[in-house]
Amino acid sequence: MSAQSTGATATRSESDTMGEIQVPAEAYWGAQTQRSLQNFKIGGETMPPAIVTALGVQKLAAARVNLAMGRLPEEIGKAICQAAEEVIEGRLSDQFPLVVWQTGSGTQSNMNANEVIAGRANEILAGTRGGKSPVHPNDHCNMGQSSNDTFPTVMHIAFVAQIAGETVPQLGRLHAGLAEKAEAYSDIIKIGRTHLMDATPLTLGQEFSGYAKQLENGIERIEQALPKLHELAQGGTAVGTGLNAVEGFAEAFAEEVAKITGFRFVTAPNKFEALASEDAAVQASGALNSVAVSLMKIANDIRLLGSGPRCGLGELLLPANEPGSSIMPGKVNPTQAEAITMVCAQVMGNHTAVTVAGSHGHFELNVFKPVIAYNLLQSAKLLGDAAVSFLENCVAGIEPNVERITSLMNESLMLVTALNPHIGYDNAAKIAKKAYAEHSTLKAAGIALGLLTEEQFDAWVKPEMMIGPSKA
Amino acid sequence: MSAQSTGATATRSESDTMGEIQVPAEAYWGAQTQRSLQNFKIGGETMPPAIVTALGVQKLAAARVNLAMGRLPEEIGKAICQAAEEVIEGRLSDQFPLVVWQTGSGTQSNMNANEVIAGRANEILAGTRGGKSPVHPNDHCNMGQSSNDTFPTVMHIAFVAQIAGETVPQLGRLHAGLAEKAEAYSDIIKIGRTHLMDATPLTLGQEFSGYAKQLENGIERIEQALPKLHELAQGGTAVGTGLNAVEGFAEAFAEEVAKITGFRFVTAPNKFEALASEDAAVQASGALNSVAVSLMKIANDIRLLGSGPRCGLGELLLPANEPGSSIMPGKVNPTQAEAITMVCAQVMGNHTAVTVAGSHGHFELNVFKPVIAYNLLQSAKLLGDAAVSFLENCVAGIEPNVERITSLMNESLMLVTALNPHIGYDNAAKIAKKAYAEHSTLKAAGIALGLLTEEQFDAWVKPEMMIGPSKA
Amino acid sequence: MSAQSTGATATRSESDTMGEIQVPAEAYWGAQTQRSLQNFKIGGETMPPAIVTALGVQKLAAARVNLAMGRLPEEIGKAICQAAEEVIEGRLSDQFPLVVWQTGSGTQSNMNANEVIAGRANEILAGTRGGKSPVHPNDHCNMGQSSNDTFPTVMHIAFVAQIAGETVPQLGRLHAGLAEKAEAYSDIIKIGRTHLMDATPLTLGQEFSGYAKQLENGIERIEQALPKLHELAQGGTAVGTGLNAVEGFAEAFAEEVAKITGFRFVTAPNKFEALASEDAAVQASGALNSVAVSLMKIANDIRLLGSGPRCGLGELLLPANEPGSSIMPGKVNPTQAEAITMVCAQVMGNHTAVTVAGSHGHFELNVFKPVIAYNLLQSAKLLGDAAVSFLENCVAGIEPNVERITSLMNESLMLVTALNPHIGYDNAAKIAKKAYAEHSTLKAAGIALGLLTEEQFDAWVKPEMMIGPSKA
Amino acid sequence: MSAQSTGATATRSESDTMGEIQVPAEAYWGAQTQRSLQNFKIGGETMPPAIVTALGVQKLAAARVNLAMGRLPEEIGKAICQAAEEVIEGRLSDQFPLVVWQTGSGTQSNMNANEVIAGRANEILAGTRGGKSPVHPNDHCNMGQSSNDTFPTVMHIAFVAQIAGETVPQLGRLHAGLAEKAEAYSDIIKIGRTHLMDATPLTLGQEFSGYAKQLENGIERIEQALPKLHELAQGGTAVGTGLNAVEGFAEAFAEEVAKITGFRFVTAPNKFEALASEDAAVQASGALNSVAVSLMKIANDIRLLGSGPRCGLGELLLPANEPGSSIMPGKVNPTQAEAITMVCAQVMGNHTAVTVAGSHGHFELNVFKPVIAYNLLQSAKLLGDAAVSFLENCVAGIEPNVERITSLMNESLMLVTALNPHIGYDNAAKIAKKAYAEHSTLKAAGIALGLLTEEQFDAWVKPEMMIGPSKA
Repeated sequence: MSAQSTGATATRSESDTMGEIQVPAEAYWGAQTQRSLQNFKIGGETMPPAIVTALGVQKLAAARVNLAMGRLPEEIGKAICQAAEEVIEGRLSDQFPLVVWQTGSGTQSNMNANEVIAGRANEILAGTRGGKSPVHPNDHCNMGQSSNDTFPTVMHIAFVAQIAGETVPQLGRLHAGLAEKAEAYSDIIKIGRTHLMDATPLTLGQEFSGYAKQLENGIERIEQALPKLHELAQGGTAVGTGLNAVEGFAEAFAEEVAKITGFRFVTAPNKFEALASEDAAVQASGALNSVAVSLMKIANDIRLLGSGPRCGLGELLLPANEPGSSIMPGKVNPTQAEAITMVCAQVMGNHTAVTVAGSHGHFELNVFKPVIAYNLLQSAKLLGDAAVSFLENCVAGIEPNVERITSLMNESLMLVTALNPHIGYDNAAKIAKKAYAEHSTLKAAGIALGLLTEEQFDAWVKPEMMIGPSKA
Repeated sequence: MSAQSTGATATRSESDTMGEIQVPAEAYWGAQTQRSLQNFKIGGETMPPAIVTALGVQKLAAARVNLAMGRLPEEIGKAICQAAEEVIEGRLSDQFPLVVWQTGSGTQSNMNANEVIAGRANEILAGTRGGKSPVHPNDHCNMGQSSNDTFPTVMHIAFVAQIAGETVPQLGRLHAGLAEKAEAYSDIIKIGRTHLMDATPLTLGQEFSGYAKQLENGIERIEQALPKLHELAQGGTAVGTGLNAVEGFAEAFAEEVAKITGFRFVTAPNKFEALASEDAAVQASGALNSVAVSLMKIANDIRLLGSGPRCGLGELLLPANEPGSSIMPGKVNPTQAEAITMVCAQVMGNHTAVTVAGSHGHFELNVFKPVIAYNLLQSAKLLGDAAVSFLENCVAGIEPNVERITSLMNESLMLVTALNPHIGYDNAAKIAKKAYAEHSTLKAAGIALGLLTEEQFDAWVKPEMMIGPSKA
Repeated sequence: MSAQSTGATATRSESDTMGEIQVPAEAYWGAQTQRSLQNFKIGGETMPPAIVTALGVQKLAAARVNLAMGRLPEEIGKAICQAAEEVIEGRLSDQFPLVVWQTGSGTQSNMNANEVIAGRANEILAGTRGGKSPVHPNDHCNMGQSSNDTFPTVMHIAFVAQIAGETVPQLGRLHAGLAEKAEAYSDIIKIGRTHLMDATPLTLGQEFSGYAKQLENGIERIEQALPKLHELAQGGTAVGTGLNAVEGFAEAFAEEVAKITGFRFVTAPNKFEALASEDAAVQASGALNSVAVSLMKIANDIRLLGSGPRCGLGELLLPANEPGSSIMPGKVNPTQAEAITMVCAQVMGNHTAVTVAGSHGHFELNVFKPVIAYNLLQSAKLLGDAAVSFLENCVAGIEPNVERITSLMNESLMLVTALNPHIGYDNAAKIAKKAYAEHSTLKAAGIALGLLTEEQFDAWVKPEMMIGPSKA
Repeated sequence: MSAQSTGATATRSESDTMGEIQVPAEAYWGAQTQRSLQNFKIGGETMPPAIVTALGVQKLAAARVNLAMGRLPEEIGKAICQAAEEVIEGRLSDQFPLVVWQTGSGTQSNMNANEVIAGRANEILAGTRGGKSPVHPNDHCNMGQSSNDTFPTVMHIAFVAQIAGETVPQLGRLHAGLAEKAEAYSDIIKIGRTHLMDATPLTLGQEFSGYAKQLENGIERIEQALPKLHELAQGGTAVGTGLNAVEGFAEAFAEEVAKITGFRFVTAPNKFEALASEDAAVQASGALNSVAVSLMKIANDIRLLGSGPRCGLGELLLPANEPGSSIMPGKVNPTQAEAITMVCAQVMGNHTAVTVAGSHGHFELNVFKPVIAYNLLQSAKLLGDAAVSFLENCVAGIEPNVERITSLMNESLMLVTALNPHIGYDNAAKIAKKAYAEHSTLKAAGIALGLLTEEQFDAWVKPEMMIGPSKA
């Protein structure tokens, strides 16, 4: 159900502290969800599925702890747990119609969850959908909670599920694919390029080892951001003090979430920071941004090395997955590189959005939470998905064009660098310049200049000796 | 139909230059759309609806011109027109399942349109859905076109429809609402604030006139970006030269699009620029970014002025649209200001994405087109929608808290500024400092310091005389 | 004199409303400048020279108008004018030691100007440097002014001087250079490239015409931003109302500034907008950002086309201005392209800074003015300087490598596109694929497939016929 | 000496592989520095001092290792060491006139260092300034090095010196200052604010503890970025292979730099990544960006809490360091908060510049190195300096306005939240709404509604019981 399509004919009446309001009869939600639907007709981006699932996890954990502490009546608590589990399983996903562009605390989505779970629990217990009795959205589903500690908690649960559960392993697969190529290409010597200009040789494997290392580091950077995401705000309630929660609730809750999700969640050491800032999300976005920077470089290199087929560099043959042009027959394009570099641009943009949003907290609460959640989750999903698509549909199928690689390498004037230790930089430069000007070879130019003999040249200039430091 | 759900059981075979592939039997699309679906499982963001509509417009205009030029067989041309009109009307919107993260030229979405329109035209003419005969996706639907000129054309059509057709009038409504308040509040004198500190007075109407002026300027900035968006790349074909198009096609096409849409489209004066750059989109994004900057300031001011109810500034009473807190009973929050400032953060982030993407063109083509389209259209829609929501659910219902405004104004020490021309800056400062230190009034401090008499003070310090320059 | 080096031994005493403070004896400035020096030991970036010059212009214009209105005593006014002229001429530039990171209204730099001009005027009139008598920094130099209208006025004067006076003509020179190349290369047919892959041909002149058009548009975008920069806040005084200014001052002042500078300055129509927002600067920054996007693309293309000399594309020969490597003898690099693309990255970053700063105004004043001035002026100067350097040291000296260009073009498989209208897209694709797979020519493949004769191929595939649309 | 002032009259001739060129007679530099001066007249931002110092460190370490390995003649090596030490000590700082906007590899600054050190060493050994004999800039000063491994090495040395050596301890001081306030204010109960609206109470100490925690986390984030900055590219030479270096050089070099600087430098495990990417700098910039986000929030809070003195929130009294207005006598502004928030905007902008620059590497080298160095070093210096200035001139002198704090807190309607566990959310809301509507107290409204007795209210609503969770 889209955010706007609320024109159902059959309705029932629901109420909140503002009064009564008509709600679609088949909906589980109540008055506050309905008000948000009507008051925020902005865009169409609904709260991300990872947030909805995390709301289920959060309500389940809270109910379990409240039950265990004897604060929630057994029957009510169990019905809440059942309903929350249905949210986690995705069976109520059409009951979360609210858009990202709502209250900046996510209160309306928290109330959406409270109302849907109460509404479903009431159906379980009393046979009537919705309402506030026997299960009350605030007093029972939100017991000991505030949106202000709940929503950042939900965000962290969703972030960890997406980033640690999806993005990191997805990037890990691409890393493995690049590392495999680095290994496989360890004997292919090719021309190096710096400033886009011909430089001294290296192996294609060495070149790919740089890519693999970038990604290995990138994964490490993301992992550095996880500990702060593991910290949960729950227990801070309205302003961080924990008013209306009971001692021990915060710790027990975090433990319960860890049990449900399998991730190492802990209670945040300072709840004021946990509500008022979204610094942990800014940090995580920064880590994803640095991975986007790496992938932009890697994908650009790969498509440049694959450029051609006849008028480009042509060192790599990229898989042909689809016709590339609606007008040029037979054209094949590096479309996977294009998709992933577009994703990188998006992640950089999202990082600006998260940065701006993160900087705007006021006093006890940052009220840019939904836009932060939306951007960070999109970045994490796009980077992970794109990494796998790039791996499966491009990297894995790359073939080196060894003939072309070798021919280019042998023509390069920068092999002259091997002469520095023997004849000095200035003399070596003379040879390179002469060969370039006369379209001749280095050897011919060197001999013509009287700077070396053919034997010396052959002994000194060996590409296979140029791909590592000399023996000490 | 989502981008991924292609697991339909009944299929038919379609082919392209890569060979055969199975397509869902009920789908109108063909081989290339299907390949894209399978090769780009990245995120879930499908091509924006405005792009799909614009694809319909573009195919319709091209077919009409090709018909008029006698290049397209009458029957085939008419069937294409009918199918394209169905795309425009949204009757085939479930036939555009491709995601943004595809080929950077938008080729796959152009082929999606070619295939769906051919597939539907074939159904009209031959009774069988899909296929390439009698209507061929490339030879007929794409006649005289390339994705490289088609997709940027489609982007511009969609941009103008969204920005000129929606965003500008939406912002215009908010501007009118703010200007109305500026008028209505022209007699309410209040304390000014600079550096967040008490300053000299102004009217609440003057304060709102600044907001209105910002928005008026913002709309003008957006309108400055339109002429370049009116320029259409169509006719440049593959690299800008117009190969395989015929002379006159570009001009006739732009005229036809102008007729269909009612906007002033013209053919781009330089097709190489039109394909290789997306500078016009970067400019438009910059204009939206500047509006986001303005709205961030305006919405922040309004929520700060409405802060309280008892411990904030409390000068404005904002409409109470929904309960504000799941834990604090009776709390009402400036949620519309929060929604629109979140939108502003998003627009700033999108602008970074568009900037990065726009800077990455290579040679004859910028291949970051879909990500640019996605971000610019999202920014335009969000800003417009949020402006209307902010107007209707917040600005229109604002009430000044005149009692509070007046009481704060009368307490301010900065009324002392009116004394500068009479006793000099340094003496005036002495009065203000004494009054502040002793928690007394300016008048009492001034008299105690012997710098003026009660009569002088009353004659010189009149807030209503402080809201404009003095007579020359 | 650097911001920090205030440890001069000889001092004199100056005072402000906070009390006395020691100032270096040789300095013209007074107490408030001295306090700022001591309180803001942050970075080393002093207020840009263009701001200092503009402060001189602003004080001169204000004094002239106050004199003309009979508000400033003749002798005092004339001494102020003389001192202000010395500021404009740069003769007092070591008297402006304050850093950018000061009060967000620029008050301290306004007071720096008031104090230095008063201090110099007192020297002229009374023989003693500094002090407040007979010329007072506030009562005379700042007469009818506030920092809050003065500093944004000064910013606009500096922006227009830099952007309209320098950047636009500098970019114009690069535009002319690119247009000249477009003309000169109009007969050189080369391979086009889309997606970095071989595409249909165009002329090198057409390719450069796209660059020239981008820059032409960019200049137009910058010029669109000028009218709002011509609007001066002066006359709004503290909060926009114009308190303590007299009627007519604002208009006369703007006219005077226009006379002094030769630019079309006018008084801002709404002073509340002019103080509280820096939207005009955000817009101008956005225009420079779009030019940076264009130049990033152009410079990247040029260095890629010049890549090699033996293992790259090698279509252009760029001037060799300096040795390129400290280790690789004879290496020459596209260093001018590197400098200008680094400038582009900086301009994009500065635009983010300006965007963030512009969005943070509060009530009657934006207090991020110095950081906005710093970034916008840096962007304008860097873009202009880099454009000229790129022109003079790179673009002007480019030579096409015609031999290489022609050889690549003739090998391309994408000439096959010319066959579409004759044998259809699908058949043409077969030819291209066969030629690619068999390393043969298109002609050979086409004949072997029986799709055309040698005569047909020669008649249909002519690069010189592929660089424009066909006759209708 | 500025980048442009090269018009000295007395000159001498120097040469490089391009030929002869005139150099100012008093300069130590040679031909390549001179060429850069003439070819890059862009902006005025010279290479940051931290880079110059680091160049000295790098040349010293390389010479020492080459001496130890017996590759550099004793006399020459020692003279190089002496000259390099003079660079480190800043005695040759006017010999580094090159601007940031040069070759993207920093080659010209590396050659600047090679030439100046050779030129000074020649003076030491032969009495003549400059030249290439007996000490040669390339063969001796650059022995076993390339700009491509040298410049990123120099950047990392400068980054660690600035960030670990300056920024982290500077931020640590601000953290300590905030933590001290958190401790000192632990008994002052005040109103909380969420969404800028009155919320439940907390202590002023708790509020400051959130700030302190943000900064503590921020320092940790910066420290996470250090290990990758400790990795040095040296030994990779031109493309990462280490050609012309000898085995063991890389490791010995890193050890030597660690010894010289006292920081834990190691040789980079993959030299291809170390040359081709600047990911470590992007990561560090991201960490500084997250600190800027935190400080923007903290400084905004502090100036909002200090707003007034009579018409704002007025809970804090900020130190009055200077007159705040050139027109409003007695005005005092939160200028330190303004300076640091402007710095935060700059750091966010710099992060965009670094992100863009970092994403643009090509093949074996990222050639946006100088712009990355410039931005990261500026961000690090500004953040650190601003933190100390903010601490010393603002935070340390903050005084709580206890009277005002207490009066506001007692008026708040959100104390009603304490009633939730006793009478339920809906009843509590009724009380708050009635009190708000009737301008009465919660107690009066509760009794009038018959929802509680005076005794109950007094027992249940105690601010001092509302600043933590209840006993389990």
